[in-house]
Amino acid sequence: MPLGERGGWERSESRYCGVETDFSDDVPSLLSFNISTGGFDYVLAPLMNPSYRPSLMEGKGSETQVLPVSGSDLVLAPSQWSSHVVGKVSSWIDLDSEDEVLRMDSETTLKQEIAWATHLSLQACLLPTPKGTSCANYARCVNQILQGLTTLQLWLRVPLVKSDDATSEGLTDSWELWNSFRLLCEHDSKLSVALDVMSTLPSETSLGRWMGESVRAAIISTDSFLTNARGYPCLSKRHQKLIAGFFDHAAQVVVSGKPVHNLPKASDSNTEGTQRHPLRSYLDYVAYLFQKMEPLPEQERIELGYRDFLQAPLQPLMDNLEAQTYETFERDSTKYIQYQRAVAKALVDRVPDEKASELITVLMVVGAGRGPLVRASLQAAEETNRKLKVYAVEKNPNAVVTLHNLVKLEGWEGIVTIISCDMRFWNASEKADILVSELLGSFGDNELSPECLDGAQRFLKPDGISIPSSYTSFIQPVTATKLYNDVKAHKDLAHFETPYVVKLHSVAKLAPSQSVFTFTHPNFSTKANNQRYKKLHFNLPSDAGSALVHGFAGYFDSVLYKDVHLGIEPTTATPNMFSWFPIFFPLRKPVEVHPGSPLEVHFWRCCGSSKVWYEWSVSSPTPTPMHNTNGRSYWVGL
Amino acid sequence: MPLGERGGWERSESRYCGVETDFSDDVPSLLSFNISTGGFDYVLAPLMNPSYRPSLMEGKGSETQVLPVSGSDLVLAPSQWSSHVVGKVSSWIDLDSEDEVLRMDSETTLKQEIAWATHLSLQACLLPTPKGTSCANYARCVNQILQGLTTLQLWLRVPLVKSDDATSEGLTDSWELWNSFRLLCEHDSKLSVALDVMSTLPSETSLGRWMGESVRAAIISTDSFLTNARGYPCLSKRHQKLIAGFFDHAAQVVVSGKPVHNLPKASDSNTEGTQRHPLRSYLDYVAYLFQKMEPLPEQERIELGYRDFLQAPLQPLMDNLEAQTYETFERDSTKYIQYQRAVAKALVDRVPDEKASELITVLMVVGAGRGPLVRASLQAAEETNRKLKVYAVEKNPNAVVTLHNLVKLEGWEGIVTIISCDMRFWNASEKADILVSELLGSFGDNELSPECLDGAQRFLKPDGISIPSSYTSFIQPVTATKLYNDVKAHKDLAHFETPYVVKLHSVAKLAPSQSVFTFTHPNFSTKANNQRYKKLHFNLPSDAGSALVHGFAGYFDSVLYKDVHLGIEPTTATPNMFSWFPIFFPLRKPVEVHPGSPLEVHFWRCCGSSKVWYEWSVSSPTPTPMHNTNGRSYWVGL
Repeated sequence: MPLGERGGWERSESRYCGVETDFSDDVPSLLSFNISTGGFDYVLAPLMNPSYRPSLMEGKGSETQVLPVSGSDLVLAPSQWSSHVVGKVSSWIDLDSEDEVLRMDSETTLKQEIAWATHLSLQACLLPTPKGTSCANYARCVNQILQGLTTLQLWLRVPLVKSDDATSEGLTDSWELWNSFRLLCEHDSKLSVALDVMSTLPSETSLGRWMGESVRAAIISTDSFLTNARGYPCLSKRHQKLIAGFFDHAAQVVVSGKPVHNLPKASDSNTEGTQRHPLRSYLDYVAYLFQKMEPLPEQERIELGYRDFLQAPLQPLMDNLEAQTYETFERDSTKYIQYQRAVAKALVDRVPDEKASELITVLMVVGAGRGPLVRASLQAAEETNRKLKVYAVEKNPNAVVTLHNLVKLEGWEGIVTIISCDMRFWNASEKADILVSELLGSFGDNELSPECLDGAQRFLKPDGISIPSSYTSFIQPVTATKLYNDVKAHKDLAHFETPYVVKLHSVAKLAPSQSVFTFTHPNFSTKANNQRYKKLHFNLPSDAGSALVHGFAGYFDSVLYKDVHLGIEPTTATPNMFSWFPIFFPLRKPVEVHPGSPLEVHFWRCCGSSKVWYEWSVSSPTPTPMHNTNGRSYWVGL
Repeated sequence: MPLGERGGWERSESRYCGVETDFSDDVPSLLSFNISTGGFDYVLAPLMNPSYRPSLMEGKGSETQVLPVSGSDLVLAPSQWSSHVVGKVSSWIDLDSEDEVLRMDSETTLKQEIAWATHLSLQACLLPTPKGTSCANYARCVNQILQGLTTLQLWLRVPLVKSDDATSEGLTDSWELWNSFRLLCEHDSKLSVALDVMSTLPSETSLGRWMGESVRAAIISTDSFLTNARGYPCLSKRHQKLIAGFFDHAAQVVVSGKPVHNLPKASDSNTEGTQRHPLRSYLDYVAYLFQKMEPLPEQERIELGYRDFLQAPLQPLMDNLEAQTYETFERDSTKYIQYQRAVAKALVDRVPDEKASELITVLMVVGAGRGPLVRASLQAAEETNRKLKVYAVEKNPNAVVTLHNLVKLEGWEGIVTIISCDMRFWNASEKADILVSELLGSFGDNELSPECLDGAQRFLKPDGISIPSSYTSFIQPVTATKLYNDVKAHKDLAHFETPYVVKLHSVAKLAPSQSVFTFTHPNFSTKANNQRYKKLHFNLPSDAGSALVHGFAGYFDSVLYKDVHLGIEPTTATPNMFSWFPIFFPLRKPVEVHPGSPLEVHFWRCCGSSKVWYEWSVSSPTPTPMHNTNGRSYWVGL
């Protein structure tokens, strides 16, 4: 029975709660007890008798032996196997043991159990935690198995521990174990992690890393629960926050262990007579946590389908936008309110109150689209009682049709002149006081706002104002397993050298963002050019532990006019604005970083005669190859 | 005029000696003086006036300006440009300067000079040493240029320095600068290194690293020369050894700087009247070093064409060898002498002198080929006066034809029985005292000797002897830029997951080899299997500096019988044997290692029902993906 309906379909994967059980050769009873009676959605159950050792079978007429599995495939319906059972691979296996017999037995058993789980069409199997710090042989064997799997997922069980004592020997950070294992298995997307949540949690920053990993399950031992005033199990605030994070990242909770809370019998009498599952109160608490989560805001619900979904950035200069695209962007009222505020401030600065009735300000909207900035500008004029003459310059003839209709409909004929022309090539008959544009992409300059405005500033007065007056791009290193795997799935170089627009969700941000390129308008300097180079150093917080950088999240912030800004850089983002998702610059090969050794990153904006592109690379701690040399994989056409 | 003819064609590339010159706008005179008079083969000359700065040209009617190059393309014949001039890119350029104007001027100049060199069809250009420890923007620009080059080679000038003081700030090891630069340029094969040889040399081990790199030139300043008793320039013993190493690795010497040796005028009178080039005595000394090198041994000359040439390993079990292959291997007399010694010792051990005339030893050659082991065995019997009965078992019907002829020709009909059959399936009519085989590959077991002998030991007596009685494989980490690039040129995964047989030459061995897998014969244990797993730790010598591991060189050593061994492991290799080149296991992505952090490597020998294969990976300092999972790219068929 799913944990709850609140939060809706969007949390479907985390709605299910499992329970870890011991081996049983009576699976139907196991299910009946834990699911029908207990209310759990599935069991995490061993598939093979834990006393089984292949080497002990030898010579005992092994040809006639039957694997000591938990029950014939026929004891459950196929749909029951797949929806109610997650296989638990024998926890005694140790593929990196010094003992060769144990190693061989482990490999044989692992392969037999996975083959059996595949035969049963299970959805997932839990792999036991590697026994030591070395896991290469285990990883080799799992990697062999992964090549043959189609639907079965493997969850590697890893304890959620990170000691802050970096001097001690042995494993202090379980993330490193996971990282080695998945690098050896080459980021296989069928390999995920199941975290054993302990009663003590590592630092907040180190926990954050897991949000960029493929965490499928959080296994919470009954020992990790506290006891509330009424004697019921509950979790610490930090645990609650962590579990809420897992719910939001499609990870399921599995309850594990023996009941350690002695509940008052009498107080719970509505299930009188029937047997109550000993772990029911833990399940109830998990369901309570699930249900008390804030429902997602409306906009967030709309955008759920875009979470971690890679989109190619727009090419608005080379291509004309479609009506649908205009439609979406025009709905972003927050953005146009900011523009209106900026234009209003500029008008008041330029035209003193006493001249408001005589001075006419020439305002040109360059890239007018279907008119939202024309409307915002006229509203700013009305609000400030300033007189405007508006030119709406638009290169897309399809949008110009709409513009003409708009002007007629609103009765703006005397004020607004429509120019059907590319702003870079228009010969204006007069010069503008104010140039208003919305040419910014997720990374600021990536839709060639600099080149367009350089062209348009020919018809801006020397003391004229550009709105926006400047914009700056930002990046930060991220762990983003899903994005990396989605890029890798294309199996070519080009996709690793392309920045994507993406609503980042399952992403761990490893350090605060830093500014990259800034452009200021107008810029009448003859030496000006739009090539840029920036070297950045990122330091991981000292308590974060090591991390894997799959690429960089990119943002922008723009100064529209004076204190009116607009942007998506997380710490200063304009609230309730949805026109831009962040951009993601992938790395061809993820780079491991450690606190204390900074990540040195280089970004270039390169300009050719017909295109603009970015190149990027990491030079420290390990140099990567240059990405997108000469714009070979990605560019924006002029 | 090339340095000398001794050593022959095989050293052709290093036969040429260049001289570094200043800028001259009279290139014909420059050539006449340095080549015709001076005796050098080419000049390393600036192509552009060093006072040129693109930013100073602006506004000076730049449309009518001509680039201040060293001379029109017409002043030399095309063949003169290409064979006598190596371009020297302006040494003032600094693409990683904080000064943006200098950075932009540098980029423009670099691109103009390379374009000019391409126009002249030069063979190579020398890029100046990066100015600081950071070189990302320089590398980005060079990488852009490399994408457009077809024949022009770029030599990055790097001083040959390595401070042993690891605690000091800044660059202490120029190899690291080179390594960053070429990693950023993704190992482009058109990018090589030119080393400035200083008067002080780093440690021997750290110098060794350069033998695995693509070093094209050693630029020796006149300051680095010592003065001999007669006042002439000479080099220290360590310098001489280094230069000899460069000669052997196709690197050319370039003499640089002002003459600093005042030669006695009178003593050199054979060029009376004509002007003598001031650097002539340095050139003469370099030629002397070239000429005094030992000529290559005959076998080495034969094998020159195989140096660093990747060959797929044989599949002698699945395929039948060709006559040509038998021919080559049969010529390796050293190998058969070792076999003869082993058989002789075994015969003497098995048959005491007093029974020599009565006891007949049954010896079976399994995989007899065209008979060399039959001959060696019979010679051993003759030498020891023991009586033999020989079975020659061979699966290749073509070789059996030769065997029959051999037996007839030699009159061995009464002693040798030929069995045309795969040893794994032959039903022998009697059992053998001695089983002789030569089934070893470069990596010992890689041609499936274990599987073949497991099959053949059915017809070995319980106290019988196998020759070889055991064999062990070895690996060591290597820097091997050329091999890596040749593997990469295939642009697929499979070639990175294939071991190659290769005569290693331009390879830096980074640590002593270690043993991997051992097989012993006969092995009658029922628990025996031929799967193997070995974890190895390699430590770089502490004075070696960091290094890049492109893969692993593999070898074998085999105990034929007691103290008679046979092998190619470098420290114990059997001299004058040429049947085996080493094997090379590539890494998909080179791994950087540092002294003090061991390289942890894993090798597996995996056995399926129809094939045997290796998997390998590195787990530390950085985990690589598993190589050749399930034998997907390379396997040996059973």
